Amino acid sequence: MSTKTYAAFNETDPLAPHTIERRHLHAKDIFIDIEYCGVCHSDIHTAKGDWGKPNYPVVPGHEIIGRVKEVGSEVTKFKVGDLVGVGCMVESCQHCSSCDEGLEQYCENGFTGTYNSKNSKHGGITYGGYSENIVVEEDFVLHVPENIDVKAAAPLLCAGITTWSPLRHWNVKVGDKVGVIGLGGLGHMGVKFAKAMGAHVVMITTSESKGEDAKKLGADEVLISKDATQMKAHANSFDFLLNTIPVKHDVNPYLQLLKLDKTMCMVGAIEPLDAVHGGLLIMKRRNLAGSLIGGIKETQEMLDFCGEHNIVSDVEMIDIQNINTAYERMMKSDVKYRFVIDIKSLKES
Amino acid sequence: MSTKTYAAFNETDPLAPHTIERRHLHAKDIFIDIEYCGVCHSDIHTAKGDWGKPNYPVVPGHEIIGRVKEVGSEVTKFKVGDLVGVGCMVESCQHCSSCDEGLEQYCENGFTGTYNSKNSKHGGITYGGYSENIVVEEDFVLHVPENIDVKAAAPLLCAGITTWSPLRHWNVKVGDKVGVIGLGGLGHMGVKFAKAMGAHVVMITTSESKGEDAKKLGADEVLISKDATQMKAHANSFDFLLNTIPVKHDVNPYLQLLKLDKTMCMVGAIEPLDAVHGGLLIMKRRNLAGSLIGGIKETQEMLDFCGEHNIVSDVEMIDIQNINTAYERMMKSDVKYRFVIDIKSLKES
Repeated sequence: MSTKTYAAFNETDPLAPHTIERRHLHAKDIFIDIEYCGVCHSDIHTAKGDWGKPNYPVVPGHEIIGRVKEVGSEVTKFKVGDLVGVGCMVESCQHCSSCDEGLEQYCENGFTGTYNSKNSKHGGITYGGYSENIVVEEDFVLHVPENIDVKAAAPLLCAGITTWSPLRHWNVKVGDKVGVIGLGGLGHMGVKFAKAMGAHVVMITTSESKGEDAKKLGADEVLISKDATQMKAHANSFDFLLNTIPVKHDVNPYLQLLKLDKTMCMVGAIEPLDAVHGGLLIMKRRNLAGSLIGGIKETQEMLDFCGEHNIVSDVEMIDIQNINTAYERMMKSDVKYRFVIDIKSLKES
Repeated sequence: MSTKTYAAFNETDPLAPHTIERRHLHAKDIFIDIEYCGVCHSDIHTAKGDWGKPNYPVVPGHEIIGRVKEVGSEVTKFKVGDLVGVGCMVESCQHCSSCDEGLEQYCENGFTGTYNSKNSKHGGITYGGYSENIVVEEDFVLHVPENIDVKAAAPLLCAGITTWSPLRHWNVKVGDKVGVIGLGGLGHMGVKFAKAMGAHVVMITTSESKGEDAKKLGADEVLISKDATQMKAHANSFDFLLNTIPVKHDVNPYLQLLKLDKTMCMVGAIEPLDAVHGGLLIMKRRNLAGSLIGGIKETQEMLDFCGEHNIVSDVEMIDIQNINTAYERMMKSDVKYRFVIDIKSLKES
């Protein structure tokens, strides 16, 4: 089916209108009429070729909310009209030990990304959510609670699960002292989730104003990381640190904040960090770890939790025609905290 | 009591004979007649001031084996004639949460090292095992099984527990694929313990000849870390990595060997490592951790295990008069795998 999208055609030009073909429905496929799509930093990195030359044209978007318009003959989990979401993955091998555990994001044969990935089963390249619609196998589609603000739910599919998964994996619980390092798309969800899990949440940031913003999101306390006296006062006191800084940085000042046996988990910086001091790990048996998005099962658990606790992202709505301006603003960190495209603007264009 | 020792008097001169006073026995104290003392790299670092100017004269030695000669009035765990050991610690606060858990090595108020430490309770500076005798509170004294080769048991008190503790903490079990990185005093004990725990043990080394040596110690397999083809073949396959390399190095080639969710534990390099690649942590939720010696309770468990499995270190015996030559050889890694001083040579000098 002929589908309107916005696509990047090379590294330097802005995104522009484009038409793609969505595949005909297979037995397990769901045809989703997209309503909203969040704008993730990965979209920019991919469109601009920061992570290697992509398969142009790139149709970005992996924070997708929409309604089921049609289902394949063997679909059992969804029906026409359901409010659904699609995140970063649309396929995995579903038979390796990671997939068996519900950890498709760590599929040993590699998952298929929602855009710019080779689709091993159906052929071609995947196209994401800056689009009128999408076809996805039901095992990679999520139920979205109807009671939350739907447009603000889109970023849950990437920024949300990326922070939810490590908070759950490292068993953050009531009363834990949890530090969220950095306040952006990921960090603001980290604060909301950790708070909802009952933790004492500390926003760790270089910026006083971001600290104030974090308090409005639910942070109990602010730690200004460039203030050596404050950092020393919080040494050896944290049960978990969620490090959302998206670029290379010195992790050592943060490591010393952890209690014995506790973990700092990286979710942003997929690049070399500054030299880690072995002594900071050895002297308190600390752990430096990383975590990648989340599995389908835990993404559903997160969405259900968001429904129960009325949690969504803080978003700024845009029309698809303003996507390039949104990219420019994101590169200056000028958004609180996620842009979401109203796909109606694409459909009516 | 006036006690013969060997001590370092400044950063550059060799160790030389010296006389110190051991304290009179307090109620909980044990007077130990030292028979053997292992020679640890920490002894050299401290004697030479590599870790900051020490409190000269330094009497090194924290791998001590001896017999109880006298006990204080309230000692309950030991009697005259018992074969005992003393490791890296002679005191801790014994009331913080770490001490309560039997993790005195992570005492929140700082443990007292066996040598070159301020003795907060009894005053003065601690003097170690290059000595005829030592006085230690019973809570920091270990029972040594009588059935093992006593002189070769000395290195268990530091090199042994330093490798035992992380293997236990990260729950190495029968059938696990465990890599021991580096073959020295620590690495050779790591191989023996991991093998005795039922793991499939892989020696990871740059040196073919060390690989062969590791097989004689029980390693099932050798992985030459500078061979990219071998490293690739072992990618994502290890359940645990024990990294005993004592100096700054690139940990990234090792991290990629770990399976999903698994840990590499540093026990050697108490200094900045080369830049860690965040992606290696994130993409497989891997952990980079560290571990420091071990608590008193687990040190006793290790010694009991060594008694049951007849495990000791591979040692080269020396007289105290040859300690300076031993230091020179250790700095060239010319020992398999630990020097142990026969303290009789000191007593009869």
